[in-house]
Amino acid sequence: MRRIGFLGPHATFTEQALRSLPQAEGAELVPLPGNPAVLAAVRDGSVDAGCVPIENSVEGAVPPVLDGLVSDPPLVIVQEAVLAVRFVLLVRPGTALAEIRAVASHGHGIAQTRGWIAENLPAAEVRVATSTSEGAAQVARGEVDAAVSSPLAAAQHGLEVLADDIADNADAVTRFVLLTRPAPPPPPTGHDRTTLALTTENRPGSLLGLLTELAVRGVDLTRIESRPIKDKHNEYWFHLDCSGHVAEPAMGEALAALHRRSESVRFLGSYSRATGSAGPATGAGAPAVPLNGADAEAYRAATAWLDGLRNGACT
Amino acid sequence: MRRIGFLGPHATFTEQALRSLPQAEGAELVPLPGNPAVLAAVRDGSVDAGCVPIENSVEGAVPPVLDGLVSDPPLVIVQEAVLAVRFVLLVRPGTALAEIRAVASHGHGIAQTRGWIAENLPAAEVRVATSTSEGAAQVARGEVDAAVSSPLAAAQHGLEVLADDIADNADAVTRFVLLTRPAPPPPPTGHDRTTLALTTENRPGSLLGLLTELAVRGVDLTRIESRPIKDKHNEYWFHLDCSGHVAEPAMGEALAALHRRSESVRFLGSYSRATGSAGPATGAGAPAVPLNGADAEAYRAATAWLDGLRNGACT
Amino acid sequence: MRRIGFLGPHATFTEQALRSLPQAEGAELVPLPGNPAVLAAVRDGSVDAGCVPIENSVEGAVPPVLDGLVSDPPLVIVQEAVLAVRFVLLVRPGTALAEIRAVASHGHGIAQTRGWIAENLPAAEVRVATSTSEGAAQVARGEVDAAVSSPLAAAQHGLEVLADDIADNADAVTRFVLLTRPAPPPPPTGHDRTTLALTTENRPGSLLGLLTELAVRGVDLTRIESRPIKDKHNEYWFHLDCSGHVAEPAMGEALAALHRRSESVRFLGSYSRATGSAGPATGAGAPAVPLNGADAEAYRAATAWLDGLRNGACT
Amino acid sequence: MRRIGFLGPHATFTEQALRSLPQAEGAELVPLPGNPAVLAAVRDGSVDAGCVPIENSVEGAVPPVLDGLVSDPPLVIVQEAVLAVRFVLLVRPGTALAEIRAVASHGHGIAQTRGWIAENLPAAEVRVATSTSEGAAQVARGEVDAAVSSPLAAAQHGLEVLADDIADNADAVTRFVLLTRPAPPPPPTGHDRTTLALTTENRPGSLLGLLTELAVRGVDLTRIESRPIKDKHNEYWFHLDCSGHVAEPAMGEALAALHRRSESVRFLGSYSRATGSAGPATGAGAPAVPLNGADAEAYRAATAWLDGLRNGACT
Repeated sequence: MRRIGFLGPHATFTEQALRSLPQAEGAELVPLPGNPAVLAAVRDGSVDAGCVPIENSVEGAVPPVLDGLVSDPPLVIVQEAVLAVRFVLLVRPGTALAEIRAVASHGHGIAQTRGWIAENLPAAEVRVATSTSEGAAQVARGEVDAAVSSPLAAAQHGLEVLADDIADNADAVTRFVLLTRPAPPPPPTGHDRTTLALTTENRPGSLLGLLTELAVRGVDLTRIESRPIKDKHNEYWFHLDCSGHVAEPAMGEALAALHRRSESVRFLGSYSRATGSAGPATGAGAPAVPLNGADAEAYRAATAWLDGLRNGACT
Repeated sequence: MRRIGFLGPHATFTEQALRSLPQAEGAELVPLPGNPAVLAAVRDGSVDAGCVPIENSVEGAVPPVLDGLVSDPPLVIVQEAVLAVRFVLLVRPGTALAEIRAVASHGHGIAQTRGWIAENLPAAEVRVATSTSEGAAQVARGEVDAAVSSPLAAAQHGLEVLADDIADNADAVTRFVLLTRPAPPPPPTGHDRTTLALTTENRPGSLLGLLTELAVRGVDLTRIESRPIKDKHNEYWFHLDCSGHVAEPAMGEALAALHRRSESVRFLGSYSRATGSAGPATGAGAPAVPLNGADAEAYRAATAWLDGLRNGACT
Repeated sequence: MRRIGFLGPHATFTEQALRSLPQAEGAELVPLPGNPAVLAAVRDGSVDAGCVPIENSVEGAVPPVLDGLVSDPPLVIVQEAVLAVRFVLLVRPGTALAEIRAVASHGHGIAQTRGWIAENLPAAEVRVATSTSEGAAQVARGEVDAAVSSPLAAAQHGLEVLADDIADNADAVTRFVLLTRPAPPPPPTGHDRTTLALTTENRPGSLLGLLTELAVRGVDLTRIESRPIKDKHNEYWFHLDCSGHVAEPAMGEALAALHRRSESVRFLGSYSRATGSAGPATGAGAPAVPLNGADAEAYRAATAWLDGLRNGACT
Repeated sequence: MRRIGFLGPHATFTEQALRSLPQAEGAELVPLPGNPAVLAAVRDGSVDAGCVPIENSVEGAVPPVLDGLVSDPPLVIVQEAVLAVRFVLLVRPGTALAEIRAVASHGHGIAQTRGWIAENLPAAEVRVATSTSEGAAQVARGEVDAAVSSPLAAAQHGLEVLADDIADNADAVTRFVLLTRPAPPPPPTGHDRTTLALTTENRPGSLLGLLTELAVRGVDLTRIESRPIKDKHNEYWFHLDCSGHVAEPAMGEALAALHRRSESVRFLGSYSRATGSAGPATGAGAPAVPLNGADAEAYRAATAWLDGLRNGACT
């Protein structure tokens, strides 16, 4: 990949997550003015891939990203990164807490430091910026007095850290995904995740029926979200994260079953689950308790047996 | 097929059912001394096919046939016939009811006329014959005084019908099946049945899990029987009749799933359900209420979609 | 219980099973001419209870008993006994094998020694008797030359054992049940069985739905049989044995659910599972792997919580 | 109820929804500075009830409200209202669009008019206010130039409507709920909703198991959301809206089952579904397709039957 878009300006948490990925090496990282802009740039080909946050351990899902993923034309996730989020309060050098009248940040930054701000800056006006780094830029430009941002933004914008670790929840992690236009999925690693979204007829038991299609094939569900469908009352996209990879027979058969039984289903990628230094994997879910016969060898043997039956063998 | 075995001698209900089948035309019909003998003759190749009763609407399953079907080497059902069974009492010409001291029949003939015999021949000794027609032969040879048999056996053995329609249940039908050594199944007709037997781990919910594999794929279960496994306490073969044909994708996927999840599964054939003049179909079960997406076209579309996903397409 | 009926004459396997039960102590044991006669005698009050075989580990279910259990007026099982069945060949003293021209037994005795008879008495005529002990009586009266019977019948009828252990399957056990008119069930022992029969609408998934009602409440299914409903084509009674007791909340709730969802359901008793010297329990099924929250205490706590909710408490 | 709290100041959408409820008649409506403040005031008894938004047809769930509902001590929903949301742009009389440098609104107001603002006020600074009405108040005080607010706020704050119907999605509705401390639920109306939240062991199939408890009892699920549990990675509260009322036996039994099987379950109220002039009900879900035997009469009959069984009756 030569060009990868992300929520700019430089020094956002998204850039930090993106730089932890192997795909970022040697690529041109392109700051863009919003997550919708990142998705649009991938879709129109002005970048080869884009990095966006999808879920935060405190805030939950990132609704515009979920909604953007089910728009057209299709996109797929090829990689994920999990980042422990550390918020700091940035000011122009020399500014004291008592001098802060306006503080800016991205909506998620504001949401995750609400308690700290209420206690320490009760009178400050809070302004929404398009990113935490843009908030820092506003401080540098003198438009506001402080920003809730990442530590990286201090150097980027020539600011100083007035307060560190100001998140209300110190253990928050955010999960980011790298998106491309449709492409063959990366090969299975044995600890993969498959993301998909589906809509279903609005009748009793239809969601249960779809989840049963996963369960009978030993596919574990690690996350489920519902998002209202634009322009339709009482209808939802269900966003699912599952254990496994589309190349595996159990997942393949489960996806085919969802394709038959749901009103519409959107495959959003199979990719390796993030682990390691970037922080604990989000939604890694249960240690796989394999259903009897859910492994690839059992599928291979069963298919061979079935082929035999259809051709006159019996065992 | 050149040679087809059946429970002899000539004029049994089994022969009558066999003669209703297209396969009987031009074939040599070979009377054999018992249903186990019929199965053995198919297995050892001394006949090309065999016809045996499998289920009676009054008596239920025919246990030795069910048990024989799951023995080795494997056999498959290629056709079924349903016969309305009409029992008569045969005697040597001139014999009066009061003169009958001993009456013979096959065990099923005895069971299905028990009420009539108790009322009309309370003092008669009842003897088990290897077939209803053999019972008639015993009358002809003077070994017993009467036989509960089919009307055809009268002419065959030179006897006369002393009482007609003596079955306790006038509407009884028996389902017969034509068996061969493993061979490609007959092509699907759109109203087919698949017969199979399986064993499962003896733990809670395991049978339910297997039935769920059928249900999620819209395969309807029309009959279930349990038969103890020889030499094992508390373990059972479950014999199932299902709607559909192994050549159809829903049934194929369901069978493959059973192969993965059951301890052992025996495919016993896919074949057209009997209807029409031979009597009402046994176990024809429910009018197919198709599960959304269970038809072959939905399977084809889902497979094509999945192939696309694995190769980088998304829709 | 003062009078208990059983399949006579004396010295049948049924009497042997009955004598192993605590209820037989001090009771008058009344021989009756058949299992249907035993059920009828319990129903009309001429005996207080009746003992009948219900299942054999080789032969499977005893169809007339299953069918009789779902007739009217209702009966319930209050106790079971499991008996290892040992067949012997009885003759009048001094009879040699070569002299045997006719051999009598109950149909189950004939079925379970078919292989031995075919090998050792290939030319003998086989006659059906109403019980194994009645077969022995026929030998004593000189009507046949030999009987397949229980060892006890030798002394009873003054016969000698010409061949011992002649069952084709040496490990066969038969399960017997003690029946009464409806009465409060015996108290739970912690290792109980509940027997029931039900019919269901003939549509796809209806049996699965009923089994799910058991499974979600942690009730284990240890046996399932289908029996055709007299006078109806393609409709069945399903006979079920389950782990647990009607007095327990999980089983109670499951039964109530079956009552709501099945076409008709017949409760056939909750009673202690047989174990011990009488032979291994048939259908004892799985060691209970308790479903989370299926025990009585969890039910009690949940009910108390629900009562609270309905009255304005929340926890 | 004498005092009911809501998100103030006066003229918010929440006040508008609250005034549509019968409980508001004659009550003192108390403006409070945020939804968390409303929940806290109900909990500490400084108001008798509180009105908060819970779900928007465009934005989805309102995370802080969901998270607040599962905090302690418990609260219950006793009523809902659905309000069609109409956003207007308010300015001080005489202000022209070109003069607007800063626009304020509640986060949801900003989110739902993002497209309109980007197109019509591309250079304006966007500030987060604690409510739409507070945004209008900031305009009145001269702190910002415009507010995205409800039409009611114009009169309240002496402003004029510069642009009407500026929501990106014209059909947006918001669902509000009225909360109290635990109290007996309002009586069932026949078209009720039950709201609950639960956590489950993090193992495959556990969510499916819980949804099955609803489905087997004919309880329809109309909404499901997952919210991360604070301080725990990869664990979630599942928020569910279901058809039915805790006073009904099917729902009661389903809740008791969830209590037994989930790690923890929080009952959040049974109340009449909103309909009519306030806008279409959100999540009203499917027209009830009643499961066979799910109605109260079937439950009553089944319970009576079970009581009979336990006392010696059988039918």
